[in-house]
Amino acid sequence: MPEIEHCRPVDLPKAYLLMNHGPVVLISSAHGGRQNVMTAAWTMPLDFSPAKVAVVVDRNSLTRELMEKSGEFALSIPPKALADKVMAVGSQSGREVDKFSAFGIATAPAEKVSAPLIAGCVAWLECRIIPETHIQQSYDLFVAEVVAAWADERVFSDGRWHFAEEELRTMHYLSGGSFVVSGRTFEVP
Amino acid sequence: MPEIEHCRPVDLPKAYLLMNHGPVVLISSAHGGRQNVMTAAWTMPLDFSPAKVAVVVDRNSLTRELMEKSGEFALSIPPKALADKVMAVGSQSGREVDKFSAFGIATAPAEKVSAPLIAGCVAWLECRIIPETHIQQSYDLFVAEVVAAWADERVFSDGRWHFAEEELRTMHYLSGGSFVVSGRTFEVP
Repeated sequence: MPEIEHCRPVDLPKAYLLMNHGPVVLISSAHGGRQNVMTAAWTMPLDFSPAKVAVVVDRNSLTRELMEKSGEFALSIPPKALADKVMAVGSQSGREVDKFSAFGIATAPAEKVSAPLIAGCVAWLECRIIPETHIQQSYDLFVAEVVAAWADERVFSDGRWHFAEEELRTMHYLSGGSFVVSGRTFEVP
Repeated sequence: MPEIEHCRPVDLPKAYLLMNHGPVVLISSAHGGRQNVMTAAWTMPLDFSPAKVAVVVDRNSLTRELMEKSGEFALSIPPKALADKVMAVGSQSGREVDKFSAFGIATAPAEKVSAPLIAGCVAWLECRIIPETHIQQSYDLFVAEVVAAWADERVFSDGRWHFAEEELRTMHYLSGGSFVVSGRTFEVP
């Protein structure tokens, strides 16, 4: 179990539920003593079981370089409480600054991949890239198997999100520093 | 211009903004006198310009069959006001029922593709599939170029969402008939 408070395991066939509602995510990767983290809005679930995800990662990013070298990455889903860090991490390149120290980003080791998990987030997916060279090169598009998944039990348990206070709700990126927070939950019979 | 009230054109390089925050979408397709519509949570922007999207569509669906035959589809982004129809359309197969008449789904012709646009939605993307047979067959994953885009000027204009009343906010799918509505907009400096 990652050493992050409130972190509990999520069954892999339910991992897609962590991303189903389209939150912004932090993508982290590590290789050869280097690590990086970036913000991404272009991600989605791809399959239930084995659990898979698809993500778009720019070819010039350090995160991408470390993803390709390690074959792995992690997705951490930030709550509104981390909004400042989400914006900072998305606005600078890891080639110019160590974002972890510059922005005070705390991490914990993942269980199955080299990429670090971001502390203070509310869900985490550890991912192993399924090599698909053509779409990686043509579209910056990666598909990956989810090999471990975790969530903050205060907001996700028994396969369901149960959002309450705004600071622990997920964020959804509009543009130019604007986000919407996950709003009211409603049921359709 | 599609004959839908409040519908206005969106510049193609800004089309990604319609989906950036991860709303649930309706995917429609048509071919040879048949048409269908389904609900999908697994979609994302893929590129700015030329604008592209990626969508996951089950291989057994009628929507998929008509997509592959026509090479086209449309995405319509529903507001909360359409929640009942979104759930109905996502719960039955077009092979068993004409969803348009059964659920009272009104449509308007698209400008550049054969697939119908769903009336009452707040944004629309007309898409032409970029053939990528391997990922279509292996992952049910389609990439497509956006060839026209539209939005309801009451909630999206000048490249920005400006949500107000709840019934016109977008919906984000959690699971099992549960959604969150797009909540409060906030800015990070």
